[in-house]
Amino acid sequence: MRHVAILGSTGSIGTQTLEVIDRFPDRLGVAALAAGRNVELLIQQAKQFRPECVSIQREQDLPRVRDALSGTGIRVSTDPCEVARADADLVVAAFVGSAGLRPVIEALRGGTDVALANKEVLVMAGELVLAEARRYGAQIRPLDSEHVAIHQCLAGHAASSVRRVVLTASGGPFRGATLEELARATPEDALAHPNWEMGSKITIDSATLMNKGFEVMEARWLFDLEPERIDVLIHPESIVHSLVEFSDGSWLAQLGIPDMRVPIAYTLAMPERLPLPDLPPLDLAALGALHFETPDVARFPALGLARDVLAAGGAAPAVLNAANEVAVQAFLEGRIPFTRIAAVSETVLEGQAGRLAPDLEAVMDADREARAAAHRAIEEGRA
Amino acid sequence: MRHVAILGSTGSIGTQTLEVIDRFPDRLGVAALAAGRNVELLIQQAKQFRPECVSIQREQDLPRVRDALSGTGIRVSTDPCEVARADADLVVAAFVGSAGLRPVIEALRGGTDVALANKEVLVMAGELVLAEARRYGAQIRPLDSEHVAIHQCLAGHAASSVRRVVLTASGGPFRGATLEELARATPEDALAHPNWEMGSKITIDSATLMNKGFEVMEARWLFDLEPERIDVLIHPESIVHSLVEFSDGSWLAQLGIPDMRVPIAYTLAMPERLPLPDLPPLDLAALGALHFETPDVARFPALGLARDVLAAGGAAPAVLNAANEVAVQAFLEGRIPFTRIAAVSETVLEGQAGRLAPDLEAVMDADREARAAAHRAIEEGRA
Repeated sequence: MRHVAILGSTGSIGTQTLEVIDRFPDRLGVAALAAGRNVELLIQQAKQFRPECVSIQREQDLPRVRDALSGTGIRVSTDPCEVARADADLVVAAFVGSAGLRPVIEALRGGTDVALANKEVLVMAGELVLAEARRYGAQIRPLDSEHVAIHQCLAGHAASSVRRVVLTASGGPFRGATLEELARATPEDALAHPNWEMGSKITIDSATLMNKGFEVMEARWLFDLEPERIDVLIHPESIVHSLVEFSDGSWLAQLGIPDMRVPIAYTLAMPERLPLPDLPPLDLAALGALHFETPDVARFPALGLARDVLAAGGAAPAVLNAANEVAVQAFLEGRIPFTRIAAVSETVLEGQAGRLAPDLEAVMDADREARAAAHRAIEEGRA
Repeated sequence: MRHVAILGSTGSIGTQTLEVIDRFPDRLGVAALAAGRNVELLIQQAKQFRPECVSIQREQDLPRVRDALSGTGIRVSTDPCEVARADADLVVAAFVGSAGLRPVIEALRGGTDVALANKEVLVMAGELVLAEARRYGAQIRPLDSEHVAIHQCLAGHAASSVRRVVLTASGGPFRGATLEELARATPEDALAHPNWEMGSKITIDSATLMNKGFEVMEARWLFDLEPERIDVLIHPESIVHSLVEFSDGSWLAQLGIPDMRVPIAYTLAMPERLPLPDLPPLDLAALGALHFETPDVARFPALGLARDVLAAGGAAPAVLNAANEVAVQAFLEGRIPFTRIAAVSETVLEGQAGRLAPDLEAVMDADREARAAAHRAIEEGRA
């Protein structure tokens, strides 16, 4: 029996994690749940799965949740770190953006393994987070379809025989779009991802390919790979979730239907596999063909930005993450065009380059200042 | 240092095995070489690699080989079993057809691991050969691109989590051909394989898909899988060499350029990998697309025949193998049309069904009688 705490239980990854847990009551249970503002769904989840504690984002929602859960013995707070400290075997980190950093550190410091969907945690502070995991003997497991794919391809093969890993990217809704079309893209256009149903932040990041840039950084830390050993390949069908090339020219690829419940089940149960019989099987003959192309960094500059900040190190990745988060929000609110999302990040990076990030406080400082700088850049129309 | 004996050193697999060995003189050496009629090439190989012994097929060639190798201390005979008994760490079994069965058994009985390219050995007597391997503590390693692919996909994953394996087939030169076109196909047409350069017997078996049927049987024994867990998928580019589907709906695939030196190097060196830097890398973006389709058993009945004899068991697989060998030879000599190759096997199977194969002698008897029956069927024009 494996007890799971979920940071972000009402989001896309959180609800699908609970769906998988619900199917295997003999193997998986819920230790704690942290949510944002979706109070009613959290209450419903807490009543169904009976965690030891739950957290919500806002003080003003506390009375409603306490009232709804009175008599259950479930503790209620606004502190996700309490959820991260619950008596769990695994913390599923599925917050969006930088909010997940502190609770993840908290879980690792308690010696609890973390399944990481919230890639910004490694983007912002990969080196620091890995150091904490090593120090407290906790493991960081991938919970992104690409990184779960790489994990499966690497299993049973010597790390020294890996030449490089290749992350696949669907190319998003704008794969074939011209720069002019990109400039006119609306939030509705950008939210229409061809293959995956995800939250809005990550869907926009997929459309700009910033998400893939973040995944390059994530892979760098999760698998201890030099950045030049991590490549990106556009694969519109999202069937091949990623590949590994070995030193003898041989490749392994992991394939499956694009449904997050498959990698979620893998990460929750590894090294065992949980069968999900009601999912449609992958039928390659019915698909007919799998396509591959080189990503176009001219139309999708986010990919180049991500590589640059990974090379720069220090606080640069945290600055990019924060600036991008603000820019994506501005795009979703109709305040900047699609093509300015990467431009805002680039402007902010220019002002914040060369910062060090010796500890978590410095990372959080860089995050705060980059957000302020991004807001200024957007308001002043400089980017 | 791993010493290798090669059964079939002058054939396609044999020469490529020596090419790989030649590149890694610190890791690989040659213990013994067995050839057929290509006496001059064998002499040249013996002079270069200095094995302890060599064998050739025909008595009449002995004086020439003894003369050429006089003073080298290399023993010369017409007995490939002597080569199989040489002081080797691994015997590469790359004879064509049933000639490989006795030397492979001999190697296993000496406790020597066997790398099996000569799939007819498992087709004819899979159960018996596996029993000998277990009894003498010897290992049978795959040396077919598809089975090396499966071996790599299975490494590091629990056997209990395997749902099925899927062998890919290029579909050969007649993938899109109509039945009428198949009936008119010449040996030259059939020998023009689109992706792989191989010997003529296996190239014809690829054109009929009998080779894939044999590979299904090979997989059944190599990986201890029920036949219904082994599927075939047509993949014209021969880049995905095979796939494994796991119980959670997740798949692993092994990919690479279609060059046998890659799987040969893998099998010779496993668990290490030998880099072959002068081979062109696999470039998926340059390829653009990988295609998949369901095999058509109506146009390629050999695949159905192979499944039938695997289900029937006993001597049926040996009968199919022998009848097919005779029929392929008759086709190559222009005596029967392409579409009669499978028909000859079917006719012979009808007459030989239900035989038992309790030991090696019974298998060899079935082989002999099936050959005679195939010759009769061809001469009498019954098939």
